[in-house]
Amino acid sequence: MTARADAEARDAADALAPFRERFAFADDDTVYVDGNSLGRLPLETRARLDALEEEWATRLVQAWHDWIDLPVRVGDLLATAVLGARPGEIVVCDSTTVNLYKLAGAVLADRPGAIVVDAGEFPTDRYVLEGLAASHRRELRLLDSDPGLGPTADEVAAACGTDAALVVVSSVHYRSGAVADMRAITAAARDGGALVVWDLSHAAGAIEVALEDAGADLAVGCSYKYLNAGPGSPAYLFVRSDLQPRLRSPIQGWFGQRDQFAMERPYEPDAGIARFLAGTPPIAGLAAVEVGGRLVEEAGIGALAAKGRALTEYAAELAGVSLAPLGFELASPTDPRCRGAHIALRHADAWRICRALIERAGVVPDFRGPDSIRFGFPPLYTRFVDVWEALDRTRQVVERGDHLALDTTLARVT
Amino acid sequence: MTARADAEARDAADALAPFRERFAFADDDTVYVDGNSLGRLPLETRARLDALEEEWATRLVQAWHDWIDLPVRVGDLLATAVLGARPGEIVVCDSTTVNLYKLAGAVLADRPGAIVVDAGEFPTDRYVLEGLAASHRRELRLLDSDPGLGPTADEVAAACGTDAALVVVSSVHYRSGAVADMRAITAAARDGGALVVWDLSHAAGAIEVALEDAGADLAVGCSYKYLNAGPGSPAYLFVRSDLQPRLRSPIQGWFGQRDQFAMERPYEPDAGIARFLAGTPPIAGLAAVEVGGRLVEEAGIGALAAKGRALTEYAAELAGVSLAPLGFELASPTDPRCRGAHIALRHADAWRICRALIERAGVVPDFRGPDSIRFGFPPLYTRFVDVWEALDRTRQVVERGDHLALDTTLARVT
Repeated sequence: MTARADAEARDAADALAPFRERFAFADDDTVYVDGNSLGRLPLETRARLDALEEEWATRLVQAWHDWIDLPVRVGDLLATAVLGARPGEIVVCDSTTVNLYKLAGAVLADRPGAIVVDAGEFPTDRYVLEGLAASHRRELRLLDSDPGLGPTADEVAAACGTDAALVVVSSVHYRSGAVADMRAITAAARDGGALVVWDLSHAAGAIEVALEDAGADLAVGCSYKYLNAGPGSPAYLFVRSDLQPRLRSPIQGWFGQRDQFAMERPYEPDAGIARFLAGTPPIAGLAAVEVGGRLVEEAGIGALAAKGRALTEYAAELAGVSLAPLGFELASPTDPRCRGAHIALRHADAWRICRALIERAGVVPDFRGPDSIRFGFPPLYTRFVDVWEALDRTRQVVERGDHLALDTTLARVT
Repeated sequence: MTARADAEARDAADALAPFRERFAFADDDTVYVDGNSLGRLPLETRARLDALEEEWATRLVQAWHDWIDLPVRVGDLLATAVLGARPGEIVVCDSTTVNLYKLAGAVLADRPGAIVVDAGEFPTDRYVLEGLAASHRRELRLLDSDPGLGPTADEVAAACGTDAALVVVSSVHYRSGAVADMRAITAAARDGGALVVWDLSHAAGAIEVALEDAGADLAVGCSYKYLNAGPGSPAYLFVRSDLQPRLRSPIQGWFGQRDQFAMERPYEPDAGIARFLAGTPPIAGLAAVEVGGRLVEEAGIGALAAKGRALTEYAAELAGVSLAPLGFELASPTDPRCRGAHIALRHADAWRICRALIERAGVVPDFRGPDSIRFGFPPLYTRFVDVWEALDRTRQVVERGDHLALDTTLARVT
């Protein structure tokens, strides 16, 4: 049996394979392995958005009676089907950046102490915290963990000491796909006086996030990766129910007001998770998140996470055999249980190889400086043959030297 | 000639009448006069969103090369076609609430002094400022202007004294449609040491906003009213170019970073208006704002504003004749040059009359407590016969006493 036939056999045995037909594909043989940046369009989203336009066109402002609960209703769906939380603990709104600002600001208003974040954390998370540290006059303690892997619980405990207020950590690291130990890091931070805001952007829909089981306090994340809700779709935030009464968003808006349409009164936050809403929520975006969440619910996050591990493990095996001799090394954890649904491969010429894959080989991964190529395998629609093709075309590109012929003066974009 | 025939004659003479055909309508005779809450669906938006879904489906992450400039590009369109500003001074992003928070927070970080806002200002504006006043330990001076009309320049000057930092005023008041004197209020605030953030939500696309001519400093506003970009579509913000270098958003996100994809560095804001971006922008929403802005550009904001004035004036005339005897009075300025494109009518039984209009008469205005009904006449698609029908059906409802038969225990929603 050839290597490709082996991949085909794995696909034939994959119970989740039919979900691929629920997504739109271009009419070409491009191998898209960047769904960890932007997930694919679910066919049902097209229909749902058409229906929403019809609602807008015909019911106009009256449709708000049905739309107004969407942020909480879709939040409940994500809570129960995707993120292991309880109804009433998640609301869908704004961007990940704005949601992180809201929750981090709420924590800083709640308690004194330093802010802890890894120096290699996703940039927007660091930027938000740099700004809050300056405006709140808090020390910003930058952890220096193993690059690309994120901090361990011990590192978080050491950084927090006994006088920290806030820790921000990604549940799945955006570079390597490394999974952080949510339970241990949450406990370590709490021992130091701090609450953790988890960034679930690369985790939601890729692994079994268990917010409740892990005792997590707070979280944010985006919906345009493994939840397939489209470019710039609304993000979400999680606040454990017992924390909700004591935390207030710094951005007080009318959708967070206790009785929104009694407009004469001073601000008083809603009793529940809606207190973290701000302005008018984006209805089409919310509908797309709902479709994306339902697909995860239907497939089952346990089955999806298992397939994600199988895909990354298969990729790591293939890379070890055919790409290691060409100078690649795995920049992700070796244990698939410690990875999300993407892996990173390090190579001295990663930037040019990534360009050559996109421009000449019909493979779309993405580059993360200084020297890594990320391959994402969203389990809802990625086949084992896609993994095989992505890595085999990478081998061919490097063996042929396609990347050496590229104009390296090209600007690096995305 | 009957009164309705007179309205028909006005429509026949209306050069903007053909723009109505560019919008989607339900197949009924509902008279929708709440476009000041949620504007109608432009037919082109349907096509544009379909095309965007196709881009997403086929180009996936690569389409970001074209999408990434949308916040600034659509901002430039609003600047030149709608709001009288210059390219590079407006960016489309987030919600009005979040944008007001960003600009107000930037001003408070820039200068000491009090915050001034009218007690009758739109709720979310007041809520944002209440929160900022508390977190920044600033005095919040609540103006008590003529209810529903918003403050005069003299009132703003008196409230600012010599130690104010920030004033927030709506350019068109959400209740009455009263137009604020942007030039005089801006100058009065500046004399008191303050910058004004204008809320353009009810003005953009309804009147000729002239940010540059009026010397305005800062503004925010929504796009789902007269710009017809759909429920929860992204908002915009304006920062006059010479102010941009000194003002920083409190929400530091990766889309506001100078070199977004050089991810290793500390936060440094973009040199221009993009510094006020935060997280990943909503692409479908931006596309809808672009369509809405192009429609205004094509019709011409001058012509639209003139038609808006003609519509509200016609409504005020009809109300004076047929509704005043039934207990209604105009709760808007009498001079059409001092109004936006909506008017308010006050009536002791406004709540029940509004419900009866919606439930029994096929007219959709909206209620604003305690005693006003708002009638909005977006000039792109409102006919003079719509004005006539709305007011004539109101007369019939009250004459028949339809509203007296309503169950008044119904909750007030929207």
